[in-house]
Amino acid sequence: MYSKYGDFHTIDWPRDLARDRLRHKCIRAYRRKDFPFGSILTIWDAGSGWICVLLVGMAAGAIAGVIDIGARWMSDLKDGICADRFWLDREHCCWAANDSAFKDNDCLNWRSWPEVFLSSDRGHRDWLYHSLDFIFFVSWAVALAGLAVTLVKTFAPYACGSGIPEIKCILSGFIIRGYLGKWTFIIKSVGLILASASGLSLGKEGPMVHLACCIGNIFSYLFPKYGRNEAKKREILSASAAAGVSVAFGAPIGGVMFSLEEASYYFPLKTMWRSFFCALVAGVVLRFVNPFGSDQTSLFHVDYSMRWTFMELIPFAALGIFGGLLGSLFIWSNIKWCAYRKNTQWLGQNPIYEVLVVSAVTGALSFFNPYTRKSASSLIKQLFDRCGPEDYGQNLCDYNRNFTFGQVVDKVDDNYHTGDLGSGLQTAIFQLVMALFAKLLFTIFTFGVKVPSGLFVPSLAMGAIAGRLLGIKVEGLTYALQQQYPKSDLWTCRIGRDCVMPGLYAMVGAAAVLGGVTRMTVSLVVIMFELTGSLEFIVPTMAAVMFAKWVGDAIYKTGIYDAHIELNGYPFLDNKGEYPYSTVAAQVMRPSNEMRVIEQNGMSVGELETVLRESNCNGFPIVNDVNQMLVVGFCTRMDLGQVLKNARKTMPYITTNSPVYFTSTTTNCDTNNINRNINSQQQQPETFDNIIIVDEQRRRRRKENERVEEENY
Amino acid sequence: MYSKYGDFHTIDWPRDLARDRLRHKCIRAYRRKDFPFGSILTIWDAGSGWICVLLVGMAAGAIAGVIDIGARWMSDLKDGICADRFWLDREHCCWAANDSAFKDNDCLNWRSWPEVFLSSDRGHRDWLYHSLDFIFFVSWAVALAGLAVTLVKTFAPYACGSGIPEIKCILSGFIIRGYLGKWTFIIKSVGLILASASGLSLGKEGPMVHLACCIGNIFSYLFPKYGRNEAKKREILSASAAAGVSVAFGAPIGGVMFSLEEASYYFPLKTMWRSFFCALVAGVVLRFVNPFGSDQTSLFHVDYSMRWTFMELIPFAALGIFGGLLGSLFIWSNIKWCAYRKNTQWLGQNPIYEVLVVSAVTGALSFFNPYTRKSASSLIKQLFDRCGPEDYGQNLCDYNRNFTFGQVVDKVDDNYHTGDLGSGLQTAIFQLVMALFAKLLFTIFTFGVKVPSGLFVPSLAMGAIAGRLLGIKVEGLTYALQQQYPKSDLWTCRIGRDCVMPGLYAMVGAAAVLGGVTRMTVSLVVIMFELTGSLEFIVPTMAAVMFAKWVGDAIYKTGIYDAHIELNGYPFLDNKGEYPYSTVAAQVMRPSNEMRVIEQNGMSVGELETVLRESNCNGFPIVNDVNQMLVVGFCTRMDLGQVLKNARKTMPYITTNSPVYFTSTTTNCDTNNINRNINSQQQQPETFDNIIIVDEQRRRRRKENERVEEENY
Repeated sequence: MYSKYGDFHTIDWPRDLARDRLRHKCIRAYRRKDFPFGSILTIWDAGSGWICVLLVGMAAGAIAGVIDIGARWMSDLKDGICADRFWLDREHCCWAANDSAFKDNDCLNWRSWPEVFLSSDRGHRDWLYHSLDFIFFVSWAVALAGLAVTLVKTFAPYACGSGIPEIKCILSGFIIRGYLGKWTFIIKSVGLILASASGLSLGKEGPMVHLACCIGNIFSYLFPKYGRNEAKKREILSASAAAGVSVAFGAPIGGVMFSLEEASYYFPLKTMWRSFFCALVAGVVLRFVNPFGSDQTSLFHVDYSMRWTFMELIPFAALGIFGGLLGSLFIWSNIKWCAYRKNTQWLGQNPIYEVLVVSAVTGALSFFNPYTRKSASSLIKQLFDRCGPEDYGQNLCDYNRNFTFGQVVDKVDDNYHTGDLGSGLQTAIFQLVMALFAKLLFTIFTFGVKVPSGLFVPSLAMGAIAGRLLGIKVEGLTYALQQQYPKSDLWTCRIGRDCVMPGLYAMVGAAAVLGGVTRMTVSLVVIMFELTGSLEFIVPTMAAVMFAKWVGDAIYKTGIYDAHIELNGYPFLDNKGEYPYSTVAAQVMRPSNEMRVIEQNGMSVGELETVLRESNCNGFPIVNDVNQMLVVGFCTRMDLGQVLKNARKTMPYITTNSPVYFTSTTTNCDTNNINRNINSQQQQPETFDNIIIVDEQRRRRRKENERVEEENY
Repeated sequence: MYSKYGDFHTIDWPRDLARDRLRHKCIRAYRRKDFPFGSILTIWDAGSGWICVLLVGMAAGAIAGVIDIGARWMSDLKDGICADRFWLDREHCCWAANDSAFKDNDCLNWRSWPEVFLSSDRGHRDWLYHSLDFIFFVSWAVALAGLAVTLVKTFAPYACGSGIPEIKCILSGFIIRGYLGKWTFIIKSVGLILASASGLSLGKEGPMVHLACCIGNIFSYLFPKYGRNEAKKREILSASAAAGVSVAFGAPIGGVMFSLEEASYYFPLKTMWRSFFCALVAGVVLRFVNPFGSDQTSLFHVDYSMRWTFMELIPFAALGIFGGLLGSLFIWSNIKWCAYRKNTQWLGQNPIYEVLVVSAVTGALSFFNPYTRKSASSLIKQLFDRCGPEDYGQNLCDYNRNFTFGQVVDKVDDNYHTGDLGSGLQTAIFQLVMALFAKLLFTIFTFGVKVPSGLFVPSLAMGAIAGRLLGIKVEGLTYALQQQYPKSDLWTCRIGRDCVMPGLYAMVGAAAVLGGVTRMTVSLVVIMFELTGSLEFIVPTMAAVMFAKWVGDAIYKTGIYDAHIELNGYPFLDNKGEYPYSTVAAQVMRPSNEMRVIEQNGMSVGELETVLRESNCNGFPIVNDVNQMLVVGFCTRMDLGQVLKNARKTMPYITTNSPVYFTSTTTNCDTNNINRNINSQQQQPETFDNIIIVDEQRRRRRKENERVEEENY
């Protein structure tokens, strides 16, 4: 069994990396000695990292596709079912029926639940159908969420939450056994489908990162180079995190930047290339699976023909400030609530009831508002969109648009409007404001319950709502200004065209709120422009994200992930922080009476066992002699204990009096035992980690052998 | 004068960073003590990095705009001049004339040189005009190149070359005095305009990075935090490098990635944010200057409506392999030639003649081939383009396109063609092959001469030519296959539309060759897609770049920049490399007789001066006592020498017998001398770098003062 570090321990980076360097050296030595096989070994060794991330990427892409399809189908199940082919979701059901007369994916083939159980003819009983609709909607939501939480609680408690805080800790060298295991993976995949279908205010993007890391962890065991070296394994995990973001948003470069900026701790450039490759493969595979059946490469593709003006940077900055405020408010309330849950016995021990209540409330309240009822991603898509000529039926695009300064616009395909709000848009604004509050409230109570839940998409949705609202406001203001001063080119947009795009504001707002919540910067901007496919709006996004970070950091100093790390008490040393201390260890440490030293040569097994028993230090200095007390090395408690235990178990000749020698030379790689050196270091207790426990008889025998060999020469 | 490290020394990273941490600590201590002013100081300190990169970005953008405009105007000067407004380049001259009847920027207002000096009416003397055209073209080229090299040689020898190898060394901690100074900056700007206008096969993108770094260096002196700390200054320089790429290619994210992947050595995340900000500001300012007068955000904007098929990955990979081969060939020959130049007395001492010869040959040979005669960037633009309906007049788009499998295509706006090459295209292919060889040859001999010269654009051009050629070949092959097997959907492109885009192949080829030459990966892919503005072709680009790197690394192990670093013998320790050594210092170092130790207390100034004189070690261990020989610290030669010299100069009471004390406590920051601590550490020799030379009288006086103060309390 491979077990180097204990659960909840932190890995020893320099030692693991040194171990890998030694392995490298051995392989090179081997190559020189044994030509054909050695070269193959070298190539395999160099290529194994690439092969591993290739496999990880492919698996991540495939899994993401399955989850997307599953969640979509199950989400539509809340509303109804496809009449003749139950395994189709609403959109595909209507496609299959070829019923193109119906807009908005509504068709005859798709039956809502009341229609399935009662007759299709509603007659006068519209209220009945509506209430039944409501009941079915909420029941499905509760049922799916309940199933998700039961699965998680029963089989894999680690499968809950977004997983990103834990991934950050793991990447920084923390060990959480089973957090990236196969059970977590399976349950989180299933739970994620159920939870996101249940209509809870959560996203599946964060958990996707966790899932990808599980895949990375599982595949790394195929390659001993990574599987047996926790530090090297983190390289694969970093690449996996990138693949996770890549499939979550269709943003390979954003994924690499996310891994670099937010997740990773140890990120050499080689890892960056591999991450990029992994993210790309995952993205390509996902596109091949094509869960949405669309040709679009970016999730929320926008195609504004307009350019933004420099004056608009003011509202964009305002959105950034709003994002920072909202983000901080969210983090503060969420942490308060999570701390309350942690400290309250009833809540902490009954996660199922909590989820049932949250999902019932979310379902019931969401049902009555079209903007909370639809899935968050389609809401975002709608808010990012511009009002094209075909969209004027929508409430969101209901502008008064027939008259412009007295003259009639008669072209139908001209998407010009005056900026005067129609009644539909006024309703939409009210609903959007409600939706914003509802989303904020739901997300505060949802992020942290015991189901797989991310918060990228809910944050984006909140931001998009706020941005769209501001955009509509600015649009109206601009038109009013233009009407008053028709000659002014303050906004440099020509009259007769829409020049303020509420969709762009939604996009910028989404980035701002997500920035305020997570405090990401570069990676967020990259993700946003990969999401929307437009390079032109980097500057507005960037400005908003910077303001969100500055304002957010001033109010609540950490992002949501770091706040959760702190809440859970994980040992995480942020490598972004600056630690301006100039104190040296001697100034803050006191010598302890428990401290023991080990003599380099000649202490017996029994004496060492006594040292281990009597002291609980994590390691012991090794001195040349107790009188001289010259430190020659250091031996960790773990190594010493493991070696002694192994020796007792596997070497029957060991007695309490057997002498133990500590050497400082690293394992030498002669050709005969290179495989043992590489693959099974833990099976050779004799030289493991520079400690030699000597069987005097064997030693004598070996020396004799050597003498005989020399004589033979 | 601030002079901490000598020329061609390497900075001491940990010490400089520790010095900055101490500064931070002082500021924090100060803030606690002196509320209102301290807080302002803190904010200023935190913001100064942002302000500095803001200034750098703005300056870099402005300078890039000026250089672009200047180079363009001067480049057109080789052909002729604007009749009524000589300060306009060809394009703007024709715009101003509003002479839209002429295509390809040819108009009546624009006069070629023969037309200026002879009459505008060519009559029968076309050959005369042609030869005069040729003579003017070559003379201008030689004159401009000669002026450039004379300027560089006379005023700023460091202004030659691309500068990226040196920037890499500087960022890794090397000191080259004056390499980022104002003279280098001025001469390199002017020289760059001249050199790129002269038609030499060089790009202005690499030097742009150098220029941006000069700007960064110059501005950093406004902020003592950066100007006085070489390690911190590198943060600004990293951001500047990003801004340089940003303005060179209009690729802010690519710039950050370039700085991270290729240039930088010390790149904390904070620097990444600043780099991004800097790159963005530079990009925005450049767009505001708008040197090309276009609305396009990306330099080589492409708008293919088609998607690539998976089968095409084979030719893309082939392009990658070609890129690796060509890149290695280029590096090998260029290094050979540069080494030859270095070792040959005549060549090394007469850079002007060399440049004159190279520019004359380049000019003369380029004149006869339309693809070498035009500027490399417009060549790239043309090669990346698809053949639209308006382009069929061009040789490059001369396909036989009237018949498709027997039926006539009559729609003019249908850009369909059969893939059969017309005679024009056949000529173009021949010219392109010639151009490829010529470019390769020119660039080998140009990169390294004593003018500012980059090789991004020449490499891109070579790759674009090769890619376009392969694309045309594949296109023909596909059409032939389709004609033979009309039902097969091997290439999954519908008949009647062009499905193989030679422009895409040009783009992929460009990335491949640049990848083969520079061995960049992620940053190159990002730059390419920012250059072309299309996210859809990441996968082809990525595949080609990966193959180019793999093949290239197998043939010639370093990229061009590292090869030049090696050639010039700069001390550069690549932080990307893995150094699998497990040797410790004691195993490879021998004790030297020259080694001296310094006693902590009591050695006199004279004794120390003797130590310095008699030993040339770089530093001396400080021991508590020569008998005990317990090491308590280390003092570098430079510090000791500087302190002693300063003391001798500024403190008249110092004699040869004055005792010197070495302390291990860092400068304490009491409120009174904080400013001295921060801003003028080198002016207080008394406590500088833990060495105290004591004036015994002063000490006694101070002690008395303290006693008096205590009594006053």
